Amino acid sequence: MRVVVLLSGGVDSVTALHQSVCEHEEVVALSFDYGARHNARELPFAEYQSRLLGIPHRIARFDFMEKLFRSDLLKGGGDIPEGPYDEDNMRQTVVPFRNGIFLAIAAGFAESVGAGGLVIAAHSGDHSLYPDCRESFMLPMAEAIRSGTDPRIEVLRPFIHEKKDGIIALGAKLGVDYAQTWSCYQGKDLHCGKCGTCIERRQSFALARVEDPTRYVD
Amino acid sequence: MRVVVLLSGGVDSVTALHQSVCEHEEVVALSFDYGARHNARELPFAEYQSRLLGIPHRIARFDFMEKLFRSDLLKGGGDIPEGPYDEDNMRQTVVPFRNGIFLAIAAGFAESVGAGGLVIAAHSGDHSLYPDCRESFMLPMAEAIRSGTDPRIEVLRPFIHEKKDGIIALGAKLGVDYAQTWSCYQGKDLHCGKCGTCIERRQSFALARVEDPTRYVD
Repeated sequence: MRVVVLLSGGVDSVTALHQSVCEHEEVVALSFDYGARHNARELPFAEYQSRLLGIPHRIARFDFMEKLFRSDLLKGGGDIPEGPYDEDNMRQTVVPFRNGIFLAIAAGFAESVGAGGLVIAAHSGDHSLYPDCRESFMLPMAEAIRSGTDPRIEVLRPFIHEKKDGIIALGAKLGVDYAQTWSCYQGKDLHCGKCGTCIERRQSFALARVEDPTRYVD
Repeated sequence: MRVVVLLSGGVDSVTALHQSVCEHEEVVALSFDYGARHNARELPFAEYQSRLLGIPHRIARFDFMEKLFRSDLLKGGGDIPEGPYDEDNMRQTVVPFRNGIFLAIAAGFAESVGAGGLVIAAHSGDHSLYPDCRESFMLPMAEAIRSGTDPRIEVLRPFIHEKKDGIIALGAKLGVDYAQTWSCYQGKDLHCGKCGTCIERRQSFALARVEDPTRYVD
């Protein structure tokens, strides 16, 4: 089967890309340049990892989120908060229904390129403040995509019962070079080490007992 | 409740807009400029009808469909076929998962503007060749949007058991000026009268026994 992998250039989706190359006959990568501050940092890694694996990589670029949506993750928004993920701290970085929008675009793209499946790296550690990361969203969304596309495209969620450290452990076995991935929401030259996604990245490498190749500011 | 109406500027969504103003406390209209040939013809009617009703109107503009998708409805595609809607004739005008993408974007927008519902004018006459118009798609998509948004946004489908002539009969009662709407997929100066959507428009006015104010080429 040909599959489309939703590829941000972060730890989870890069691992999903490497795993998909092992598990599926043909892989196409799709990234989104949606006006987030860190897009300019993560997209080159999406490009790098696709080229490394010899996979076609396309980018859907749009600015309607910046223009119409409210979120501090987007370029027009406020500062990215420091400290660990929790409801109060990170709520303003939520982009409403972002995964729903990405999956819907990927479904239309997949039908256009003759793919039978989408791969999304959503995992069980994804945070309670993102309702569109939860399996209670993924299940009906997968059914909507199956029913709403002619080839009845499947949404594959290989990591839905994994946590980030389990994904890193798997990726290390597959030989993924995590120095060539990006997490930090700040989108500056180095990972800040202080925002929720940096703290989680660092902790997950420690839990997985995999050496963290990331250069943090601190 | 505040609702977001998906507004193309066609007969169905313009009627839904007029009905929504009667039924909901606050209405915001959202249109999509997605690279279809007829966008330039229909969007001014979306704008006109919103202004007439004193409703805020926003447009999400993007070109990723033109760049990444294959469809003769889009500017880079082939000619629009003449003759009535049927599987063989109109298949190449399908934009894969278009309603899924529009609903997903509208859900994110609705959460951003504090709306509790979306209104989509999908109806029972929508064609079997569009899998993302059917209720078998709408039901799980509505559940995905409910589960994937924090305010649990509802997808309202007031015309799902109506046909186009029933919608026109309703609109005529509400005083909708259908001269200020657009259907034709060709997107030229006048309605061509020959493409599937023109033929259906004309037939539906006849069935509804409402005078058709449309100027067709023939």
